[in-house]
Amino acid sequence: MAATSSEFHDSNINNDGLPLVFYHCGQKYRGIPFREWIGTRYRLLEPSDSTFPTLSCSVRVLLCVGISEVTSEILDQLPSLECVVGSSVGVNHIDVAECCRRGIKVTSAGDAFTEDVADYAVGLLIAVLRRLSSADRFVRDGMWPVKGEYPLGLKLGGKQVGIVGLGSIGSEIAKRLEAFGCIIAYNSRKKKELVTFPYYETIHDLARNSDALIVCCTLTNETHHLINKEVLTALGKTGVIVNVGRGPLIDEKELVQSLLHGEIGGAALDVFENEPHVPEELLALNNVVLSAHKAVTTPESFSALVRVIVGNLDAFFAKQPFLSEVEPI
Amino acid sequence: MAATSSEFHDSNINNDGLPLVFYHCGQKYRGIPFREWIGTRYRLLEPSDSTFPTLSCSVRVLLCVGISEVTSEILDQLPSLECVVGSSVGVNHIDVAECCRRGIKVTSAGDAFTEDVADYAVGLLIAVLRRLSSADRFVRDGMWPVKGEYPLGLKLGGKQVGIVGLGSIGSEIAKRLEAFGCIIAYNSRKKKELVTFPYYETIHDLARNSDALIVCCTLTNETHHLINKEVLTALGKTGVIVNVGRGPLIDEKELVQSLLHGEIGGAALDVFENEPHVPEELLALNNVVLSAHKAVTTPESFSALVRVIVGNLDAFFAKQPFLSEVEPI
Repeated sequence: MAATSSEFHDSNINNDGLPLVFYHCGQKYRGIPFREWIGTRYRLLEPSDSTFPTLSCSVRVLLCVGISEVTSEILDQLPSLECVVGSSVGVNHIDVAECCRRGIKVTSAGDAFTEDVADYAVGLLIAVLRRLSSADRFVRDGMWPVKGEYPLGLKLGGKQVGIVGLGSIGSEIAKRLEAFGCIIAYNSRKKKELVTFPYYETIHDLARNSDALIVCCTLTNETHHLINKEVLTALGKTGVIVNVGRGPLIDEKELVQSLLHGEIGGAALDVFENEPHVPEELLALNNVVLSAHKAVTTPESFSALVRVIVGNLDAFFAKQPFLSEVEPI
Repeated sequence: MAATSSEFHDSNINNDGLPLVFYHCGQKYRGIPFREWIGTRYRLLEPSDSTFPTLSCSVRVLLCVGISEVTSEILDQLPSLECVVGSSVGVNHIDVAECCRRGIKVTSAGDAFTEDVADYAVGLLIAVLRRLSSADRFVRDGMWPVKGEYPLGLKLGGKQVGIVGLGSIGSEIAKRLEAFGCIIAYNSRKKKELVTFPYYETIHDLARNSDALIVCCTLTNETHHLINKEVLTALGKTGVIVNVGRGPLIDEKELVQSLLHGEIGGAALDVFENEPHVPEELLALNNVVLSAHKAVTTPESFSALVRVIVGNLDAFFAKQPFLSEVEPI
């Protein structure tokens, strides 16, 4: 059917009447049911589909599920691509520079996860300061009647909390922590004009003046291993660090050494350099809270994400502005 | 030395020049170093001291450490007692009615622990909603590479949170949760005139209109098993409960049954009916967060507590108003 075939080329509308979207979903994200949620509005094309060889040349938009990598090799297969619709806040898994070079727009999850990540960051901070997860193990292991009192934790109120990256997530974290009586400061690429929290130009200075660091900035070449040995030393023996950003923001080997040698007070980590692998040395430490990259995962935030994804896809096909376009690098 | 002996009777000043205080500290609280902190200002008398038989008749004030029981039998041994200085927020371990009958004043920890308990309650709520402690076990048990995605938790923001007992702790919890976008309501003995949160006259109505209940009221005869089977049923299958008050505020057997049968969504418990014993059925549940009665325990709150205790002792000997007198029942 030549007419239908030309429709693909002209408008990306297939014979179901649904706009065509390349569905880029690695094996590890098969558990996220985007197909069911989004498949009613768009025809989702996958490499395993029999129609892929015919249709790949005409696909104009790619939906990237989770943090499946979008490389220049994938872009090469989709010569008509105009847009990558992402489903995460950080887009370091997408080769944004290459997309930019090819004139391909990139969108992110926008603010869909902001509140959940902020809530989780505060939960992790309380957990590491007050030893919440290790207390749970203490009770489950039957230690309470045997050992009696559990070691003291540290109070949250009055703590100097340094926020690394004061974007929308960092701002929401700050708002929550102020209600606990924490004293907020931040570091980011540049000082924010409308923000009254003290700004430190270097991460090192922020760490030296903080009891806790919360890492929630974007992972780029510049922020890779932003938290290095010197920053951890500046944070000091009683300082704690929370990471809800991306694993490689912290030099993980140095973090492990600092924790093993008591050079920092503790850590609460939702992300790691080599997920799903977590450094084995951390598994036995009671001053560490571990979590499986799940700061964003609630049904409520997935619903919000679907709204953002559908909003961006609709905007693309209607030639309207995106809800959450990533600034070109 | 008759002169010194009469001094004991007259002013409770012993031959060290320090006011005499009966130190009531059960074996399980020996880890709390009050002796060191308070012993420089007061002479602390214990039943095992050789001078106890001579001095017990003249003791006017008893310092109760932790939740060591103060019974009428103990009061009988101290016929000159005028005051019990407590070191906890709840004073259900002190026979306040009997103290009142004998004209003995009782003081509590006042607000020394308020912020720490409020912080911990919020931490427990995030932990049970977002499955924080069970995620930590999941990672430590090496399940992340094997099982992949961890089950979703529930979002905190927008949740209807019912606070059971809107005293100073409950108010601090409410302040914190508002910053997360929670919608607060409460139940207490009576409606608070200056509070704008919706008030429910019955705990049953509060539970029916809440996604989460936080129990932080005083344990009295009236509040014993306040959270019963009916209240848990009203809270419902997705509802969660946090207890930072006292174990017997909840009918623990009914709570265990509700959790085992999925009649409520989850629980985060810092206190239990028969501490340090925790119902064994709870130890295997992933929707339960367990903690060893440690919501108050940070070095900062102990310092605040010592200030309250010393303040109350000083006030007693100076015939000034107490910092935190418990209202007679």
